[in-house]
Amino acid sequence: MDNCEAVLKLFLEAVQANMSSVEKKEDIYEIPVGVSNRHVHLSQADVNCLFGDAYQMTKIKDLSQPGQYACKETVTICGPKGAIEKVRVLGPVRSKTQVEVLVGDSFKLGVASPIRLSGDLHGTPGITLVGPKGSVQITEGLVVAQRHIHMNCEDAKRLGVQDGQVVSIEVDGPRGGIYNNVAIRSNDTSVLEFHVDTEEANAMSINSLSKIKIIK
Amino acid sequence: MDNCEAVLKLFLEAVQANMSSVEKKEDIYEIPVGVSNRHVHLSQADVNCLFGDAYQMTKIKDLSQPGQYACKETVTICGPKGAIEKVRVLGPVRSKTQVEVLVGDSFKLGVASPIRLSGDLHGTPGITLVGPKGSVQITEGLVVAQRHIHMNCEDAKRLGVQDGQVVSIEVDGPRGGIYNNVAIRSNDTSVLEFHVDTEEANAMSINSLSKIKIIK
Repeated sequence: MDNCEAVLKLFLEAVQANMSSVEKKEDIYEIPVGVSNRHVHLSQADVNCLFGDAYQMTKIKDLSQPGQYACKETVTICGPKGAIEKVRVLGPVRSKTQVEVLVGDSFKLGVASPIRLSGDLHGTPGITLVGPKGSVQITEGLVVAQRHIHMNCEDAKRLGVQDGQVVSIEVDGPRGGIYNNVAIRSNDTSVLEFHVDTEEANAMSINSLSKIKIIK
Repeated sequence: MDNCEAVLKLFLEAVQANMSSVEKKEDIYEIPVGVSNRHVHLSQADVNCLFGDAYQMTKIKDLSQPGQYACKETVTICGPKGAIEKVRVLGPVRSKTQVEVLVGDSFKLGVASPIRLSGDLHGTPGITLVGPKGSVQITEGLVVAQRHIHMNCEDAKRLGVQDGQVVSIEVDGPRGGIYNNVAIRSNDTSVLEFHVDTEEANAMSINSLSKIKIIK
């Protein structure tokens, strides 16, 4: 009887050890997903116009990328065909204002918005922003974000990719498929995350709990 | 001089003939795209509750599939977390009410909506619909549409597919990629068209002017 119990105990321990090793096993090629809704990055000059002179934004939530955060403040985006209210401002301030909308938003606004990586604003259309203290009409800066993967240089090495490279991402499930033209954005400080907007995430039924893998 | 003019005329005719043959050349594997926004199909019983006894819907626009049309009437969809106003009713009436929403809508409503083909409503969640004369709480019928291609039997033969088969679709361009799990829906009367919802279309930057091809 004692023997039998001892064997049972050893057996249970072995099963449990095995289970926890399965749970702990990380797939080094899995990449977390970050889903962005429409949002605005503002220059300090435009902050002053929209919210008042020398106004400082109020951080409400840190984002996954170091130093980036969501602010309490929102603005209205106005185009020739329509307006979109309560668009979140992200901090910190940037040298140039950049408005990132969904493809569906650009139909509503009535302005065709090119697909661009953040910061690549040359030749993009302008738009009007309205805040509680005034409005600004930017001459360029309206974009739809190109899907991309942030990572640090160690991640890039492990995943076998380089900053600026374009890869594809495969998604499983009933709305699965492949996203092409996914840009790698790698530097010393970034945190590993695949960034898509809400329309792209919903089209493939992925969310911020999903993990994806690169296919080249 | 006459000769020169004659040669020039012949040359111009040849160029024009060549251009029109290029314009006329159809790719027999290209499929038109239809983009659907959220919409509702109603049973006559639910029409009576929402719009009044024996109410008849008013057609405002024929849709691409024979006999299907958009109605003047709209309803509000209400879930535990939120409501969506002005949701278009499509006709004619059906035996069962079916509410087709976007993935983003199901977050707003607060009801997880399974991805289903039209008519496959078993086990789907219910939702509340509100019209000008009353409301109904359906016990099932809330779905996100599974992407599919309508076609007649000749199209299916030419494209080498069968009713019920699941294929993939490749899209080019800066937001290109592949949609998997695209269902073939073929019968005697359907018109060839790839149906996606607005989120799926925007995620790949396709619209109702796009043409796509099947990859298996």
